[in-house]
Amino acid sequence: MTDAARATNLTSAAGLIVRQPRARAGGRLMPFDRWLGRQVQQRIADAPVRLELWDGRFADGAPQRAAGDLIVHDRRVLIGLAMNPELYFGEAYAAGRLEVRGFLPDVLAALSRRMAPRAAWRERLAAVLSPANSLTAARRNVHHHYDLGNDFYARWLDREMVYTCAYYADAEMSLEAAQRAKLDLVCRKLQLRAGETVVEAGCGWGALARYMGRQYGVRVKAFNLSREQLDWARTRARTEGLDGQVEFIEDDYRNVTGEYDAFVSVGMLEHVGRASFHDLAHVVRRTVRRSGGRGLLHFIGRDAPRRLNPWIRRRIFPGAYTPTLAEVTADVLAPAGMSVVDVENLRLHYARTLAHWSSRFAVAREPVREAYGEEFRRTWELYLAGSEAAFALGWLQLFQVVFSPRASRPPFLTRAILYGRDERPV
Amino acid sequence: MTDAARATNLTSAAGLIVRQPRARAGGRLMPFDRWLGRQVQQRIADAPVRLELWDGRFADGAPQRAAGDLIVHDRRVLIGLAMNPELYFGEAYAAGRLEVRGFLPDVLAALSRRMAPRAAWRERLAAVLSPANSLTAARRNVHHHYDLGNDFYARWLDREMVYTCAYYADAEMSLEAAQRAKLDLVCRKLQLRAGETVVEAGCGWGALARYMGRQYGVRVKAFNLSREQLDWARTRARTEGLDGQVEFIEDDYRNVTGEYDAFVSVGMLEHVGRASFHDLAHVVRRTVRRSGGRGLLHFIGRDAPRRLNPWIRRRIFPGAYTPTLAEVTADVLAPAGMSVVDVENLRLHYARTLAHWSSRFAVAREPVREAYGEEFRRTWELYLAGSEAAFALGWLQLFQVVFSPRASRPPFLTRAILYGRDERPV
Repeated sequence: MTDAARATNLTSAAGLIVRQPRARAGGRLMPFDRWLGRQVQQRIADAPVRLELWDGRFADGAPQRAAGDLIVHDRRVLIGLAMNPELYFGEAYAAGRLEVRGFLPDVLAALSRRMAPRAAWRERLAAVLSPANSLTAARRNVHHHYDLGNDFYARWLDREMVYTCAYYADAEMSLEAAQRAKLDLVCRKLQLRAGETVVEAGCGWGALARYMGRQYGVRVKAFNLSREQLDWARTRARTEGLDGQVEFIEDDYRNVTGEYDAFVSVGMLEHVGRASFHDLAHVVRRTVRRSGGRGLLHFIGRDAPRRLNPWIRRRIFPGAYTPTLAEVTADVLAPAGMSVVDVENLRLHYARTLAHWSSRFAVAREPVREAYGEEFRRTWELYLAGSEAAFALGWLQLFQVVFSPRASRPPFLTRAILYGRDERPV
Repeated sequence: MTDAARATNLTSAAGLIVRQPRARAGGRLMPFDRWLGRQVQQRIADAPVRLELWDGRFADGAPQRAAGDLIVHDRRVLIGLAMNPELYFGEAYAAGRLEVRGFLPDVLAALSRRMAPRAAWRERLAAVLSPANSLTAARRNVHHHYDLGNDFYARWLDREMVYTCAYYADAEMSLEAAQRAKLDLVCRKLQLRAGETVVEAGCGWGALARYMGRQYGVRVKAFNLSREQLDWARTRARTEGLDGQVEFIEDDYRNVTGEYDAFVSVGMLEHVGRASFHDLAHVVRRTVRRSGGRGLLHFIGRDAPRRLNPWIRRRIFPGAYTPTLAEVTADVLAPAGMSVVDVENLRLHYARTLAHWSSRFAVAREPVREAYGEEFRRTWELYLAGSEAAFALGWLQLFQVVFSPRASRPPFLTRAILYGRDERPV
């Protein structure tokens, strides 16, 4: 049996990776390797994670008991982990040159707890210096992630293809039910009334747009840059008899025109980029100007300014930035003349959503490998597990922010009316 | 009948001031006065408010129809309104040298709509340059406002002496019911459990501390600098048999020690001052460090950085600053290692609270005048009416922010559990 075959054999279907190291894949171990191994192990000291080198032995200083092990297959990986672990962990893992023994989200969580936050000023500077996403770059970034093919996403998302944090109104909810509960929560927070108009910036596969049209009787213009997503969304809208009511537009959010009763954007702000916040502020200001107007931003955020993990930026979300609540309120909403009405942090709902996605992704392991290759599959496995750990630990937040023009009456005076029932069919 | 007697006679008890101008109190009108009157009238152009000079005639350019009139009794007032209306409006009103015909909150609202917001950079600069409130200054500022005498506040606050925004769970609630609903809402947001410990920074007359102890069975340490308030609070706690459980401490919030399950501060942050936010961050960090710890800040805020009206700072709240949500999250919560769990804006609840206070204050008109003098009474009348207008128009916001340590489980996963019932008796 080859090493590769043995590894496959030992890999469970639920993300529990118990591969054996490929013996001596990295060549003979030198004293330098063992010294470097000790340095890396010291960096993750206190985390119950052991570093195992390619001779099958643990690095010096590895703890007795561990939640999991990192298995390093060659010297280049070891050097990468010593120099820039945030980038090379992902690169090596995707290439199969670094493997994890143990439950991946738990091992990542244990490692994350030990990472010192980078200096705040460096983060602020980096955020300010990042170039704005031009219209072309925005289009390229969207294609990178969202045009991987509807078939790929259909393997592990819910039936409505909602690729954002779900809302588990109770702990036992299925992913399908929780995504539906999220769509309805957004509609209730906006207090949509039949006949009103809504603009959606970044609509994915159109689940929210269709839900708003179908369940709340509003007219929707939904913007997106991904043609594959839009084709799918339009087909579904036609099937559901919504084509006169819900319009899908292939364009950048910056080209939104017109005035609406409500503005909504779920999972797009992360892709806007810090330097384009003033563009978004202009869009919000000119679309939400009616008395009684209101809006909702749903986005992945941070407690303090910090760039996304460099590997995630390189492999998963080029051009993305997860802002703080302060950045969004000071640099998008205040310049747009909006008051914050309500903020809810749903980070643990996102951890659960990601756990659901990971389970489904693990089931789709073989077809994904066949269609996209093992490196791609491992990249996505790590991305989903790492994101789950980040939300579970509070390294990432999920904010829903409701806003309305300053002098305007907010959409609700007490929240009690939002929680009278779980869903509101028209 | 003298002018003064006529004025009193014509003044309704509900804040509707219909005084006649004191004829020629300001001396003979000169061409300069009429020119200056036109300038001031032009500044408030578009607002349906007329300027009437001391000869009983409207200024040039006054609108035909108006929601109310400003009656200027002398040249000094007119110059003050031209030079620095934000300060001298209040000064002149309090002195009775400027009077208002019409419903005071409405006239103030009409005038406020016309005020151009000051340049943001000037506001930011001013905020940064304001000196920190030293322990001594903090004590002096508190005495200025809160030691006016319990009898004074008892005339127009609710029975429990809650001097912060109430929560009108339904529109018909009395002030007493709405204040009780607010206390309970705060407790529910903190998910207090019997036997837990709570520290309260700035406890006023102790209504929340006693409510938490009585209804939720927690042990409370409550800090305040006002001896008069504390005497009252201690007496009430003793009467209610809470003295072992609820402890009132005469000290600055910066001297809070120990660890607690929950931190709460209602209506104190406005008095902390921008330059002392890092002090507050330290207090929050060291008091809320337990896993499962959480806190709530309830404060008057702004959409964008802006100093309080200078007259309010001079006469009502020396040392006060109403921060933005961004300032509080970036400069208090993030440095304290806290994640924002939930934010609710209750500004229209504060407008209604202030309307209730104004009605009661109007009923207490004569005894307040007798005890404190007419200038004091007019100062407070204007302060209450102006604050109501500011909240109604969105110049001021009222934020309740729930937070918890980053990696800690937030106090609730869905808000639905907060709204099952209005109050939770133990």
